[in-house]
Amino acid sequence: MKHGEQRDLLLIRGGMVVTGQASLRVDVLCGGVGEILAVGPELDVPTGCTVIDADGLLVLPGGVDPHTGIGVDEAGFAATAGALAGGTTTIIDVMRPHGRDMAQAWRDWRQAAAHAPVDVGLCMGLPDAGGAVMGGMDMLAAHGVNSFHLSMASGMADREILDLAAHAAGLGALCVIEAQNAQAMAYLRAALDHAGVSGAEACLLACPPAIEAEAAGRAIMLAGLVGAPVHVGPVSTTGSCAAIIAARAQAQRVQAHVLAPHLVLDEAVYDADDASPYLARPPFRDSTHRRALWGALACGAVGMVASGFSPAGQAAHGMPEGLAERMRVVWRHGVQAGVMEAEEFVRATSEAAARAFNIYPRKGAIMPGADADLVLWNPDAQEMRPASAGGLYGGIMLGGQAVCVIRGGVVALRNGALQEGAGRGAYVPCPAFQPGLSARMRQAARLSV
Amino acid sequence: MKHGEQRDLLLIRGGMVVTGQASLRVDVLCGGVGEILAVGPELDVPTGCTVIDADGLLVLPGGVDPHTGIGVDEAGFAATAGALAGGTTTIIDVMRPHGRDMAQAWRDWRQAAAHAPVDVGLCMGLPDAGGAVMGGMDMLAAHGVNSFHLSMASGMADREILDLAAHAAGLGALCVIEAQNAQAMAYLRAALDHAGVSGAEACLLACPPAIEAEAAGRAIMLAGLVGAPVHVGPVSTTGSCAAIIAARAQAQRVQAHVLAPHLVLDEAVYDADDASPYLARPPFRDSTHRRALWGALACGAVGMVASGFSPAGQAAHGMPEGLAERMRVVWRHGVQAGVMEAEEFVRATSEAAARAFNIYPRKGAIMPGADADLVLWNPDAQEMRPASAGGLYGGIMLGGQAVCVIRGGVVALRNGALQEGAGRGAYVPCPAFQPGLSARMRQAARLSV
Amino acid sequence: MKHGEQRDLLLIRGGMVVTGQASLRVDVLCGGVGEILAVGPELDVPTGCTVIDADGLLVLPGGVDPHTGIGVDEAGFAATAGALAGGTTTIIDVMRPHGRDMAQAWRDWRQAAAHAPVDVGLCMGLPDAGGAVMGGMDMLAAHGVNSFHLSMASGMADREILDLAAHAAGLGALCVIEAQNAQAMAYLRAALDHAGVSGAEACLLACPPAIEAEAAGRAIMLAGLVGAPVHVGPVSTTGSCAAIIAARAQAQRVQAHVLAPHLVLDEAVYDADDASPYLARPPFRDSTHRRALWGALACGAVGMVASGFSPAGQAAHGMPEGLAERMRVVWRHGVQAGVMEAEEFVRATSEAAARAFNIYPRKGAIMPGADADLVLWNPDAQEMRPASAGGLYGGIMLGGQAVCVIRGGVVALRNGALQEGAGRGAYVPCPAFQPGLSARMRQAARLSV
Amino acid sequence: MKHGEQRDLLLIRGGMVVTGQASLRVDVLCGGVGEILAVGPELDVPTGCTVIDADGLLVLPGGVDPHTGIGVDEAGFAATAGALAGGTTTIIDVMRPHGRDMAQAWRDWRQAAAHAPVDVGLCMGLPDAGGAVMGGMDMLAAHGVNSFHLSMASGMADREILDLAAHAAGLGALCVIEAQNAQAMAYLRAALDHAGVSGAEACLLACPPAIEAEAAGRAIMLAGLVGAPVHVGPVSTTGSCAAIIAARAQAQRVQAHVLAPHLVLDEAVYDADDASPYLARPPFRDSTHRRALWGALACGAVGMVASGFSPAGQAAHGMPEGLAERMRVVWRHGVQAGVMEAEEFVRATSEAAARAFNIYPRKGAIMPGADADLVLWNPDAQEMRPASAGGLYGGIMLGGQAVCVIRGGVVALRNGALQEGAGRGAYVPCPAFQPGLSARMRQAARLSV
Repeated sequence: MKHGEQRDLLLIRGGMVVTGQASLRVDVLCGGVGEILAVGPELDVPTGCTVIDADGLLVLPGGVDPHTGIGVDEAGFAATAGALAGGTTTIIDVMRPHGRDMAQAWRDWRQAAAHAPVDVGLCMGLPDAGGAVMGGMDMLAAHGVNSFHLSMASGMADREILDLAAHAAGLGALCVIEAQNAQAMAYLRAALDHAGVSGAEACLLACPPAIEAEAAGRAIMLAGLVGAPVHVGPVSTTGSCAAIIAARAQAQRVQAHVLAPHLVLDEAVYDADDASPYLARPPFRDSTHRRALWGALACGAVGMVASGFSPAGQAAHGMPEGLAERMRVVWRHGVQAGVMEAEEFVRATSEAAARAFNIYPRKGAIMPGADADLVLWNPDAQEMRPASAGGLYGGIMLGGQAVCVIRGGVVALRNGALQEGAGRGAYVPCPAFQPGLSARMRQAARLSV
Repeated sequence: MKHGEQRDLLLIRGGMVVTGQASLRVDVLCGGVGEILAVGPELDVPTGCTVIDADGLLVLPGGVDPHTGIGVDEAGFAATAGALAGGTTTIIDVMRPHGRDMAQAWRDWRQAAAHAPVDVGLCMGLPDAGGAVMGGMDMLAAHGVNSFHLSMASGMADREILDLAAHAAGLGALCVIEAQNAQAMAYLRAALDHAGVSGAEACLLACPPAIEAEAAGRAIMLAGLVGAPVHVGPVSTTGSCAAIIAARAQAQRVQAHVLAPHLVLDEAVYDADDASPYLARPPFRDSTHRRALWGALACGAVGMVASGFSPAGQAAHGMPEGLAERMRVVWRHGVQAGVMEAEEFVRATSEAAARAFNIYPRKGAIMPGADADLVLWNPDAQEMRPASAGGLYGGIMLGGQAVCVIRGGVVALRNGALQEGAGRGAYVPCPAFQPGLSARMRQAARLSV
Repeated sequence: MKHGEQRDLLLIRGGMVVTGQASLRVDVLCGGVGEILAVGPELDVPTGCTVIDADGLLVLPGGVDPHTGIGVDEAGFAATAGALAGGTTTIIDVMRPHGRDMAQAWRDWRQAAAHAPVDVGLCMGLPDAGGAVMGGMDMLAAHGVNSFHLSMASGMADREILDLAAHAAGLGALCVIEAQNAQAMAYLRAALDHAGVSGAEACLLACPPAIEAEAAGRAIMLAGLVGAPVHVGPVSTTGSCAAIIAARAQAQRVQAHVLAPHLVLDEAVYDADDASPYLARPPFRDSTHRRALWGALACGAVGMVASGFSPAGQAAHGMPEGLAERMRVVWRHGVQAGVMEAEEFVRATSEAAARAFNIYPRKGAIMPGADADLVLWNPDAQEMRPASAGGLYGGIMLGGQAVCVIRGGVVALRNGALQEGAGRGAYVPCPAFQPGLSARMRQAARLSV
Repeated sequence: MKHGEQRDLLLIRGGMVVTGQASLRVDVLCGGVGEILAVGPELDVPTGCTVIDADGLLVLPGGVDPHTGIGVDEAGFAATAGALAGGTTTIIDVMRPHGRDMAQAWRDWRQAAAHAPVDVGLCMGLPDAGGAVMGGMDMLAAHGVNSFHLSMASGMADREILDLAAHAAGLGALCVIEAQNAQAMAYLRAALDHAGVSGAEACLLACPPAIEAEAAGRAIMLAGLVGAPVHVGPVSTTGSCAAIIAARAQAQRVQAHVLAPHLVLDEAVYDADDASPYLARPPFRDSTHRRALWGALACGAVGMVASGFSPAGQAAHGMPEGLAERMRVVWRHGVQAGVMEAEEFVRATSEAAARAFNIYPRKGAIMPGADADLVLWNPDAQEMRPASAGGLYGGIMLGGQAVCVIRGGVVALRNGALQEGAGRGAYVPCPAFQPGLSARMRQAARLSV
C-alpha cells in the first residue's frame, strides 16, 4: 500500500457521510496503511482507536484539485498547505518542461513535489510532438503518469495534437488541452499594443470568448478524429460549454474543468483600482458566460472545478491564489445558493477529478480500501471575505468550512489549524486507462472518419 | 427491514463487482433481512453460508426497470418473471386509474402487484388536476408513492400539468410525463382515417418526431415555471433529446427514459409482413434519431432504459414484451459494441432509475445495507434472435446473460432457470424527495419567472 | 387602378432611391392613377409636372407596418396620421371580431378603416375553428383578405390552429399567430394575484421568455404538420428567434415580426416611476433578448418591424403609441449605429411586410407600376426624445426623418407637416398566394409526417 | 459602357419576367451598349427592333456562377461555352498564382480569361500574407478585383487569415475562404496511405464532415475578430451550415456557396464502378448533410450555388464538369420538386452571387441600366440524364432548359444552339464595397473583442 507504514486506527463517528452518490449517516473507520477499513452504521470502536466526533458535520472524501501549475517550485508545493486547509487532499499538477528533456523534467518535478503536504499526481506538459517527447510519454506512463497537457494557447499545432492524442490514447492516457487560439491571441495582442492598450483591459480584449469556443471545438474535433478521449480546460465561455455538450451528446468522450474564480467573478473586476489579481487566462467574462458555466457544471458537461493555482513566476496566466477557497466557492454559490445538491458538490470538487485521472475509487470515494482522505465539513459556515482583503476573492461570499482534514489516515488539520508533524503527502501514480474502450473507439473512429 | 424475515447467508465470491461507479474484484455477503452485509476483497466465509462462485462473471446490482404499464393485471405482474430472468429485480409500474378513485386504484394495484416475482414500486397515473386527485396524491405520498404520471398523449392540458407539478413538488414527488401532443395526434389520426391509411403506416404517420419534440420541450418548460423536477419519457427523437439537453445545461432538473427497442429498431420495421409487434407509441424512427438516443444515453441526458412493457389490453401503445431483453439489448449494442463502459451500463439499466425514484442506494447499488438484489452476468454471451422468432426482437442481436439472479437475498434464478419457491417480490415504497432543493428551486423559479 | 382617379404628374428628382435591393441615383415619375410611371437617371420633366427636389435625401418606398390592432375604432384610424408623418403609408390592421359574425366584423372594420389617412389592409382575427368562421374566411378571401390572426395568447387550442391553418392554406392565405401560452400565463397571473403582485412587475412576471419561445416553437410545428406557411409575432425572445431560425433552416416557410419598442427597451423600464406605457404583451426583456432580436432582423429570420399600435381600450396589451417612431427607431439603432445597411432598413420596414401580405411589388418597391408611395428621408437627422416627454420613447434616441411623404401619388406630408386635403388612404386588397408551392408543400408534409 | 459598341435593339416579348423579387408579365427592351433599356407591360416595338417571342417561357437574369477555378487555362475558359448553354452568363473565376507574382498572375489570367464566351470576374487566390501579396491586393483592387481567395485547405494559417482579412476589409474587398483543416487532412491522408486505402474511399475518409465544420466555424470567427465580411465555400455539411446560421443570427456578415453536385449526390457515389468523377473536395456526404444544404439554401444562409468547375489539371479537387448543369440541377430538385419558388431560384443562381461580388444590379437583375444578360427558360423541361452518360450527373434528373441566352444584348444561344459570331464575354470589374458599414463594423468589433 501507498504509505508503507501502519497508521493508528481512527473512527469518524456521528457524521453524515456524503459521497457523489449518496448521503448516509454512517461511521468511517480508518487505519492500516492509511486507508478506509470500514464504513457502516454505528461501527464498533476497536481497541486503541481514536474517535473523532463528527456530529453536525458532513464527512466528505478529500477534495481533488484537477489543475494546478506549480511545476518545479518547492515553495509553491509547500503553499499547497492552503489546499489542505480548504479540504483538498490531492492535486494534479501540470509541469511544463521549459526546455528540460522529459526525464529531467520528471526528476525535477518529483523532487519539488515531494515538499507538498497534499498528495500529488502529475500531468506532464508536452512541448511538441517529436520523437523525444513521444519516448518521454512512454517512460512517464510507466511511472504513473496517465495524462499529458497540450497548450493550444502556447501555439501547439493541430497536427501535433493529432499525433500526441493518438499516441496518448495508445498508452491509455488522457490529453488535457488548454483551448485558446494562439495566433488569434497574438494578433489581438499586437493590435492592442499598437493601440497602446495594456493592463487589465488588454487582458480582457486579447482573449475574447469566441477564441476559446473555437479552440475548444477544434480540440474536441481533433480528439474525435483519432478516437481519443479528451479533457478541455479551463473553460470560461458559453461557446466552450456548447461545444462540449454537443460532442458529449454524440457519445464522444469529452470532459472539462472550470476554474473556481470563473464561477463567481465577471468582467466588472477589470474596473477595480487594482486589477492585478484578475490578470488570468482565460479572463473573466460577462454574467451570461458565468450562468452557462454553472449550467454545464449542473449537468455534468463541465464536471470538475479546479483552482488553477500557479505560484507567481511559474505561469504567466495562472491564479496566484485560491487553493483554500476552491471548495468554499462552490459550496456557497452552488449548494448554499440552492443550485446544487451536496452529492453534486462532492462530484464537482472531488469524485469527477479522481475519475478523470483514473484514481477513483482510491481518491474521491469513501469506501473500504479507499485512501483515508476525509474532510469534516461544517455545512452552515458562511463568510463574506471583505473587499479590503484584496486578492481574487475580496468582496466574495464563501461558504462551508473544513473543520478537520485527514490525509492518508493522519489528522492534518484540526479545528481549522494545520497539525505539525502531519508530514507530507505522497506521489499518486495514475494508472493507465484500460485500453478496451479506447481501442474500440479508435476503431470506430477509423471506420467513420 | 423490508422482508421481515431472516435470509440465509450467501457469499458471492470471485466475481468482478460492477456498479455505476467502479469495477472491483470483491466478494459480496448477503443475509439478514435480505440485504447486503459486506463488500470486500476475499471475505471470510461465515459458518453455514452458501457460496456462489462468480468466477468469470460480473456481479451487478439487480436491474431497475423505470417504466412498465401493468396496472391491475395479475397475469401481467406474473409475467415479470421474464424481467427476473433478464436480470431485472425491480420495476416501477404505472397504474392508470381508468375511472377508479385514487384510493380504489391504489388498493387494486397493490393486490395485483403482489403477484410479481420482482419488487415493484408505483408511479400513479393522474387523470386530471381536480381536488379529488390532489387529495389522492397526498394519500399516496404517505404510502410510498413519490411519482405521478401525466399523459400529454392522452390530452392533459398545460394548466393541469402546472397545477399537478406544483402540488407534486410540494409533496417531494416527481412528475413523469409522456410528452406527445394529443391534439396534433388526433388531427393526424383523423386525416389518416379520412385518407384510408391505417395499420403500421398510420402508427408511424400519426406521431411524427416533431410532435414529440414539441411536447417534450413544453413539458420541461412548464415544470421549470413551477420549479418542479420532471421526468420525460419515453423519448424517441433527436428533438426531444435536444430539449432535454438544453434544459439540463441551464441547470434545470430534468431526467428521461428511452425504451429499449427504440435503441435498436427503426422505421424499416413497418415494412415487415407482420408489423403488429411494432405498433408502439412512440413509433420507431429513422436511424438519425436512434443515434441521438445513444448519444443522449452516453452523456446522461436520457439516463435510463425502460422496457415499456404493458400486457396486451392494458395500454393501447405499450410494448407487449421485452422485459427479459431490456438489459441484453443495452449490453450488446452498448457495451459489446464499444459505445459504453460496463459502469455506464449499470447506471443506464439500474442505478439511474433507482435514483430517479429515490430508492438508491437501497436499489441500484452494491454496498452494505443495500437490498441483496444481484445479478451474475456473463459478459461474453451473444445471441442472434432469429427473425423467425418474431416479436419485437426477432432478427436482433442480444448480448450478455443473467446466469444467476438474487432478489432480496434469495436465489431466484440459477443457471438460467427460475427457482421454484423463490417467492414473490415486495412492494418498494419510494420515499419523498427532500423538499430542500425543490423548495429552493421553486423560490428561484418564482424570482426569475 | 386603385384610386380610380387621375393624379397630377410628380417628379422626384436628385435623390438616392433606396429599395430593398439597391441604392441608385435615379429620378422617379409618378402620376396616372397614383402609380409610379418611370424610374431612371435624369428623367425628362413632362409638361405640367410638379418637381420635388430630393437632393441630399433618400427616396424610400413608403413604409408598411405589418401589425396594428385598431379594429373598429374610427379615432384610432384617424390617429394613423402619425404613421404617415413617420414615413409609413400602409398598415395591416388586425380586427378582432369580439362576438360579431365575420360578415358584420368585415363591414364594421371597412367603415372604421375608411377614416385612415394611410392605406389599410386587413388581417382578420379568428375566434375559433367552427364552420361559421371557416365560411367567413372564404368570404373574406374573396374580398382581398389573405391573412388571418390566431391568438394562442387568448387560448386558441392546437387542434383549432391545425384546422384553421389547413383551411387558410387552401385559400392561399397566411396565418399570423400570436405565440404565447395562455394557460401558463393564466397560471402565473393567478399566482401573482395570490401573492399580491400587480402592475409593472406582474406584467413582466406573467409572461416569461420561456412561455413565448415554447409557443412560437409549437405554432411553427403545427403549421409545418399541415404544410402551411406561418407568420409568428410579435416575438421578443432569444428562444423564439431560435425556433424560427431552426425551422427556416429546414426549409419551412416561417416569417415573423418584432415590435419596434422591443428593439430598444429592456426590462429596466419597469423600474420607472410611471411604468404604464410599458405594460405590453410581450413585455420588455433583458438585453440578451434584445441582441438576439437585432441578429434575427439582420439575418432575415425576423424580417419585419411593426409598431403594434393599438388605441387604448382596443387591445389590452398593444402599444398605445409608436406609429410615428417605428421607422426612426430602426434607422437610428440599425443604420446609424452601423448594424444595418440602408437597403436592409427598407426591407425591414417596408418590403418584407409587403411580401408577407402578397402586396409586393405594388407596395414596398419603387418600380413602374408600383403604387406611388414614397418617402423623402433625411438620413442624417437624429433626435434624443427627452425623458420628460414620457411615453414609450421618452429618453430614447431616434434617427432619420420623413421630410416629404407621397401616398398614392399625392403629397401628404411636406416639410414635416401633414397636408390638408391629402385625403384618405385606400383599402388594400391582399391577393391570395398562388396555391402552387403551398399545395406542393402540403403534399410534401403529408408524405413526411 | 462596358462593351463600347452599340447593340441592335432587341425586345423580349410575352414572357414572365422572374427576378429575385417578383414574377411579372412584362416585356424587356435591350440595346445601347448591351444594356436593358426598358422593362414594362406591352412595350412598344421601336423601329428596327428584333422581337423575340417569350410566350410560355420565363425570362431570367443571366446566371452568375460564383466559383470556378480555371486560372490560366485558355481551353478551360473556352469550355465555359457550356455555362452559356446552361443559362449562365457570368462567372467569377478563382486564379491561384502558383508561384507567379501578383502582377504576372493578373496579366496571365486576363489573357486566358479573354477566351471565355461568358463575362468573367476575378477572385484572386492569395498564397500568403507577405508584403508582396498585400501590395498585389492593392494593385488588383484598382483593377476591379474585390475578392480574394484564402485556402485553409492548402494550409493558410490563422494569423495569415487575420492579416489578410483585415487588409481586404480596408480595401472594401471580400475574403472567400475554402474552409477545411489542412493539417487534419494531411494526418488522415497519411494514415490512409499507411493503411493502403486510396481512391474513392480515401477521398471520402480524408475529409470527414467534422473537419469542414470546424474550419468553417474558425474562418467565421477570425473574420469576426477583425470585423471583416466573409464568404465561406464550398460548404457541404450540416455543421458548416450551422456555423454560418449561428453567425448570421448574431448579425455577422457571412455568406456562403454550395456546389451544385452536393445538392444531389451523396456518398453512395463512391460505390460506383468508376468513381473518378466524384473525387472532389469536399467529398459527397450522406443525405442528412444534403438536406441541411437545401435548408440553408432555402433560408438564405448559404445563398448561392456554384459549379466549382475546374478543368482537369488546374485544381486537384475541382469539378471537371457541370457548368451547363448548375442551374438545371437547382431548377429540377428545387423548383420542380416544390422546395423553392422561381424567385428563390433566381436569387440562388444569379442575384445572390451578383450581390456577393458587388456587381448587382448590373448583373443578377432585370431593370433599366442593367446588363442585357437574359435567359429564356423553359420551366417545364425535364430530363433524366442516363446513367450510361457517365460523369457527375449520370443518372440524375435535370430540369428547366435555356432556350435562348442573351449576353450583353447579343443572342448567344438560340433554340439551344450556340450562335457563331456571338463573340466573347467581357471582363467584369467588381467595384470595392463601400467602406461605410465595414468600417463601422470593424470599429464595433474592436470595441467588443
